[in-house]
Amino acid sequence: MTDTDVMNIAKKRGFLWSSFEIYSGVAGFFDYGPLGAILKNNIINKWRRYYVVREGFYEIESPTIMPGEALKASGHVDHFTDPMTECKDCMEVYRADHIIRDAIDKDVEGLENQKLTEIISKNKIPCPKCGGHLSHVWSYNLMFQTLIGAKGKKTGYMRPETAQGIFIPFKRLLRFFRGKLPFGAVQVGKAYRNEISPRQGVIRLREFTQAEAEIFVNPSNKKHSRFSAVADQTLTLFPAENQVKEAGTVKVKAGDAVQNGIISSEILTYQLCLAERFLSELGIPDEALRFRQHLPTEMAHYAIDCWDVEVKTDRFGWIEIIGIADRTDFDLKSHSQYSNEDLRVFIEYDEPKTLKKVVAKPDMKKFGPMFKGNSPKVKYALEEVDAGTVQKSFEDEGFFDVEVEGEVYKLTPDLVGFEEKTETIRGEKIFPHVIEPSYGIDRILYSVLLHAFRNDGERAYLKLPVDMAPVSVSVFPLVNKEELAEIAHEIRDNLRLKDIISEYDASGTIGRRYARSDEIGVPFAVTVDHETLEDKTVTIRNRDDLKQVRVPLKDVYNILRSLLTGEKRFEDLDA
Amino acid sequence: MTDTDVMNIAKKRGFLWSSFEIYSGVAGFFDYGPLGAILKNNIINKWRRYYVVREGFYEIESPTIMPGEALKASGHVDHFTDPMTECKDCMEVYRADHIIRDAIDKDVEGLENQKLTEIISKNKIPCPKCGGHLSHVWSYNLMFQTLIGAKGKKTGYMRPETAQGIFIPFKRLLRFFRGKLPFGAVQVGKAYRNEISPRQGVIRLREFTQAEAEIFVNPSNKKHSRFSAVADQTLTLFPAENQVKEAGTVKVKAGDAVQNGIISSEILTYQLCLAERFLSELGIPDEALRFRQHLPTEMAHYAIDCWDVEVKTDRFGWIEIIGIADRTDFDLKSHSQYSNEDLRVFIEYDEPKTLKKVVAKPDMKKFGPMFKGNSPKVKYALEEVDAGTVQKSFEDEGFFDVEVEGEVYKLTPDLVGFEEKTETIRGEKIFPHVIEPSYGIDRILYSVLLHAFRNDGERAYLKLPVDMAPVSVSVFPLVNKEELAEIAHEIRDNLRLKDIISEYDASGTIGRRYARSDEIGVPFAVTVDHETLEDKTVTIRNRDDLKQVRVPLKDVYNILRSLLTGEKRFEDLDA
Repeated sequence: MTDTDVMNIAKKRGFLWSSFEIYSGVAGFFDYGPLGAILKNNIINKWRRYYVVREGFYEIESPTIMPGEALKASGHVDHFTDPMTECKDCMEVYRADHIIRDAIDKDVEGLENQKLTEIISKNKIPCPKCGGHLSHVWSYNLMFQTLIGAKGKKTGYMRPETAQGIFIPFKRLLRFFRGKLPFGAVQVGKAYRNEISPRQGVIRLREFTQAEAEIFVNPSNKKHSRFSAVADQTLTLFPAENQVKEAGTVKVKAGDAVQNGIISSEILTYQLCLAERFLSELGIPDEALRFRQHLPTEMAHYAIDCWDVEVKTDRFGWIEIIGIADRTDFDLKSHSQYSNEDLRVFIEYDEPKTLKKVVAKPDMKKFGPMFKGNSPKVKYALEEVDAGTVQKSFEDEGFFDVEVEGEVYKLTPDLVGFEEKTETIRGEKIFPHVIEPSYGIDRILYSVLLHAFRNDGERAYLKLPVDMAPVSVSVFPLVNKEELAEIAHEIRDNLRLKDIISEYDASGTIGRRYARSDEIGVPFAVTVDHETLEDKTVTIRNRDDLKQVRVPLKDVYNILRSLLTGEKRFEDLDA
Repeated sequence: MTDTDVMNIAKKRGFLWSSFEIYSGVAGFFDYGPLGAILKNNIINKWRRYYVVREGFYEIESPTIMPGEALKASGHVDHFTDPMTECKDCMEVYRADHIIRDAIDKDVEGLENQKLTEIISKNKIPCPKCGGHLSHVWSYNLMFQTLIGAKGKKTGYMRPETAQGIFIPFKRLLRFFRGKLPFGAVQVGKAYRNEISPRQGVIRLREFTQAEAEIFVNPSNKKHSRFSAVADQTLTLFPAENQVKEAGTVKVKAGDAVQNGIISSEILTYQLCLAERFLSELGIPDEALRFRQHLPTEMAHYAIDCWDVEVKTDRFGWIEIIGIADRTDFDLKSHSQYSNEDLRVFIEYDEPKTLKKVVAKPDMKKFGPMFKGNSPKVKYALEEVDAGTVQKSFEDEGFFDVEVEGEVYKLTPDLVGFEEKTETIRGEKIFPHVIEPSYGIDRILYSVLLHAFRNDGERAYLKLPVDMAPVSVSVFPLVNKEELAEIAHEIRDNLRLKDIISEYDASGTIGRRYARSDEIGVPFAVTVDHETLEDKTVTIRNRDDLKQVRVPLKDVYNILRSLLTGEKRFEDLDA
């Protein structure tokens, strides 16, 4: 079963399809259909359970349209670009690095435009469409631009990532968390990237959904309070070093990865472990997952360490579905500079520090007669100056000149005494570092579908985890008879009333109905048959092993609920 | 407690605040903070339970960026406009109708630009900012425009409503629902409106969240199969007639409203009832709600009947938070015309209709020799013509001319016989009508906050329904002691592990902590005290009546779960 087959079934059954089909479509846009939207919501809800409920990070929601200033500060106006080239003959446009990769199988990510232009020209790479000449390479900004307001003067952009919406209100978040590090905030929502020529379906979208957490930590403490809970978890790592040496991946315990310096901190490693657990609960098998470290050449200049979670696909090879990075203090520092707001956090020392300090003390009895009404101003001006400078001037020159509002007052040693003072310093202000796990929800959904499809020759089915299946229960009357149909309808309605999505189906043979139900991954099917009329029991059929158990009608809801929440397994039911 | 007080508390406590504050803000954009985002998700999840799980409509998710063609078809490119005027002196821009309303207290909604220009000039309405002269009024399109793709030639817009994303893939949805009406699809997501000068906080946003259902029905059957379940529900209606007569609202049972023709159909009325139940479960009291029918002058030209659900506010008067409309077949017809796709549905008749029909039958024995190789073509051409026309021509002229590929063949009565045939017609193709409940989630959230705030002099608290509260449980150690803190932490961690959002707080006096917890609407507070150490019990305090019960530590989760799901009420707990 290839990716293409999976996508065809997904399209046919209502998981996803290209958007705007009746208007000939627009590349890079997909609709989630009736089943796809529920699956997506299920994935997002699980993500929220992980990050918001259990980790205790809070979610925020900021606009998708952002003003230019904010994205200038974040670096996106200047650097969120792809190298582009145009055919001088047919005017088609291309990503220069993709054209080169496809033509001469060379990875040129990160090279400068001039270098790319040279490679195209040296290798005589033609336009793939018409064979024409390709232009020089320039940087194309990937943000969708718009204008905010009726005056048409304020430039806005569709946000390139949800993260920036968390950095901007950092001061409010800090207040919410009562000024204490570490804390985390998350955002789930749309992000946009006006790709030059998206041709990979749901893998390269112009509008996509991110779930990002920004975890603000004290730069001098990147330990994690619950690290012991993950220290023994085994991760499949593909460190930068192994990539350079063309060695393979290594399986390492989380604790050892930190100890051996493969991953830069506990807090980053903890996020890798969380991601792995999350994906495994979505049904993506371990052997289709790896953590690839960014090479120094591909990592953003401000980052310390970045790991991509990659999933194996037939069609596209290993694709990144999650990025986990230590972004340091780049974003907060940058917004601080551009906005002129202090986005630092006051960090209290474990022990207050005491500092001995000499201060200059004017003799006010002499100041008064000498400087008259100006004497308070001269006093303040003197106190502003470092006492050491004053002392040195007295020693070297015999006097010290202090300037007040453009006028110079000469102070002599007899006017000034010196005192030793002890100052207590409770802490200092710092820019927190940011740990960011960034989940690509669309690619994760694609991976889930890909790894859920089963075709054992006998039948094709979607082995989705029970809590991910868009429809939880199918309800069938065995045959098309009024009394059976009525009971089946009642079961369906009752389950829906109790928040379990279930579907009634009476069309075609029972075999055909089971097949349809399996194909969209419904984990359980309830069948009402003639025995139901006699002893008020129904059968529940398990999607994965096709086993059936007969249960009392009155227990159907409770049994299904416990199966769906994972409280019980199907094999635990009494046959 | 005024709206402004509520918004101040909301901002201070982290529900919502103006976006991009550090960049001086941009009007019409708000962030949901840590508590606001959870409240919003809670509202949306309840909406999904109502519409997706219980009503059985399926959700889809389409892009927020849409190509120009699709919005040309929907009418938004031409008609999604506001009347605008500009000050010729200070260049400030205004909504012309608002300027007039504020200056001379006159509602001019729906008037043409020329008329508005006249009113401004006749009343000498000046620029409110500088007193300067206002320009003539023109139509300003409210969509945010952008360009899709690197060639910069494809115009796109941020969608003005989520509804269009459901109409466009209508054929795929129809297939998913196996071609049968009625069915419904919903969408929850961002919509955009580049307001001229938004000045009403979260009430008039440039980016907002809609939850819309599009219910496709047979135009000849607008009954509802579950209408009896709502027929006795009392609605506070403000029909168009009463508005014109300046009469008040009327309380009418849903069944009577249909019978008396106040609301145009059962299916529309059912949606009003659903909306009322939904809002009441969100804690919005009946007396703050009314259903206002659109006046014929304000209703979209294609709509049959529209009702706004309005909520009373101190600051803005009655505001629309939900619109419920019968959009007829306008949208599907329009997309059909623009896209050249057949978006009709085949409706089977209850009984097939039989039609008697006379058909012309060429005598092929004579056709052959006469028309040679052309005889099959002449035969088909003849059969294409209505038999009655042929008969009439034979009677009037004695012959019938049939044209084949530009050549005319003369047929005489001896060449053609006539036969009576019976045809069975199983049904016909029609454009479904669309019933649309459209929920404005931001305004609903605002209304929920507004009506949840209580200040009884003693204390200020947020009386949110238990399933809406962003934080479900506060956990406190009575005093700051290691053993108590440890147990309290354990309770918090265990609740979170089981998906209940709970917060630990040990800062300040217990009274101060209760007050903070009440102010953000936490329904239940668990306190660990000295007795806990002795007999392993804790207290649970109820936000609304301040009552406390002592319960065994081991039952805390189960009790809280049943309180939060509504299985139990606090007063049912044994004291």
